[in-house]
Amino acid sequence: MGQVIGKKAMETAIDKASKYGMGMVAVRNSTHYGIAGYYPLMAVEKGMIGITGSNSRPTVAPTFGVESILGTNPIAFGMPTDEEFPFLFDCATSTAQRGKIEFFARTNRNIPEGWVIGENGESRTDVQQINIDLDKGKAALLPLGGMGELGSGHKGYGFATVVEILSAALQGGVFLKALAAVDENGRHKPSRLGHFFIAIDINAFTELESFKKTAGDILRQLRASKKAPGHDRIYTAGEKEYLTRLERMKTGIPLNKKLQDLILNLKAEYGLSNYRFSFE
Amino acid sequence: MGQVIGKKAMETAIDKASKYGMGMVAVRNSTHYGIAGYYPLMAVEKGMIGITGSNSRPTVAPTFGVESILGTNPIAFGMPTDEEFPFLFDCATSTAQRGKIEFFARTNRNIPEGWVIGENGESRTDVQQINIDLDKGKAALLPLGGMGELGSGHKGYGFATVVEILSAALQGGVFLKALAAVDENGRHKPSRLGHFFIAIDINAFTELESFKKTAGDILRQLRASKKAPGHDRIYTAGEKEYLTRLERMKTGIPLNKKLQDLILNLKAEYGLSNYRFSFE
Repeated sequence: MGQVIGKKAMETAIDKASKYGMGMVAVRNSTHYGIAGYYPLMAVEKGMIGITGSNSRPTVAPTFGVESILGTNPIAFGMPTDEEFPFLFDCATSTAQRGKIEFFARTNRNIPEGWVIGENGESRTDVQQINIDLDKGKAALLPLGGMGELGSGHKGYGFATVVEILSAALQGGVFLKALAAVDENGRHKPSRLGHFFIAIDINAFTELESFKKTAGDILRQLRASKKAPGHDRIYTAGEKEYLTRLERMKTGIPLNKKLQDLILNLKAEYGLSNYRFSFE
Repeated sequence: MGQVIGKKAMETAIDKASKYGMGMVAVRNSTHYGIAGYYPLMAVEKGMIGITGSNSRPTVAPTFGVESILGTNPIAFGMPTDEEFPFLFDCATSTAQRGKIEFFARTNRNIPEGWVIGENGESRTDVQQINIDLDKGKAALLPLGGMGELGSGHKGYGFATVVEILSAALQGGVFLKALAAVDENGRHKPSRLGHFFIAIDINAFTELESFKKTAGDILRQLRASKKAPGHDRIYTAGEKEYLTRLERMKTGIPLNKKLQDLILNLKAEYGLSNYRFSFE
């Protein structure tokens, strides 16, 4: 179970970093490990830099390809700062990921160019049909940078390949199409994912307070730089999520109507009449 | 001098990795260290994974910004494979870099959308004027993913920030605007760049041959996946460069007319009449 072994693996990387300055752990035969950014935050709490990545079920086409073969292969970096919240950058190496497309579908908005390629190599934005065709292998997600090389889609493809190799090759694991969560007959099967976890002890390089101040200064100067007209704020990675968390702790989590209905259907299906949601 | 200390720093990281399984070195007060991918290849030759990154002079605007504050901040990863050439992914974290824009300018082609933002927040493609305005701070490069968040420009911006922090904060160095290569009076000054170097000894995890085979299998399966119509080949990172190198070793390096003239002017300026170029 990804979330259990993920925590254990990052703890091990942190222990090794405490002793040797840095530590790295690779995991085999795992499942989806949840929010990638969770693990770097464990390192940040110990005054360390945390890095993790994971391969995932094939949904992304390489540059010049149309076949879903790479995963959205997330990578995440966490760094301590002198602010109330750390730097936390956690991203899929595809332009978008499935959940974002499903969100656009539920709210009836077509997706932008550069997210999805069709089986004939065409750019696609028709979100409802895309949602069906992604499952059938008739459409694939595009790497960060979009289609072809002009927008540097080959860079997103490169990052995805780095994550694929680091997740699989250090532990002799399976990769790419072998990570599909369904077998040839369409039956669900375990996906046998691989992950990697790195912890770097800042004290092995410099005073932790010095690192935190430099990191904080970088983030503050980025936020203070000149805004594009129509934008009154520049964010740094992890800032929106921190602000959203503060807000949600106060006011709760908004759910759109379709998701509310989905939850109520699940409630009925499993006979959970003892639970009540605020939107009921 | 970046290329001298860069080599020394990667050697040190490799030495540490030989002893402890992995090693990392941060460098302060350096200059441009040349081709980032050179350093990971040093680790690859020792059966290790090599990673490096560097901050650089401010030319890139953050998401929702227009000011050149981040560098193109390259990051590079090298991994051994069982093929004739290793996996080598070496990229600027901006969509494009200055050299690519100069190449489009010399060959009189406008650049695509998503490379450059103007001071009023507009997307710009007028390459000749852009080349002038980039120097004046009236235009800035965009992070990988392009303008705003819809194409995931915030991801390129996040990668650039990771490289900025790792390059500066571990060694108490300068960063962002302080890396400008000109002072307030427009005079040239040293840029005091920072770099980081990581080596990971594969033998600390698994047999090197096992890693090489898995990495090679991943690359071969990517290349063998279904092509988009109009494309007969899918490349993996480092493959095009390897093939180009083989070709150039045989036939030489093609130079466009403008670059030939530039070289001949330099030759005249410095009185190097003893040298003869094939294009003279």
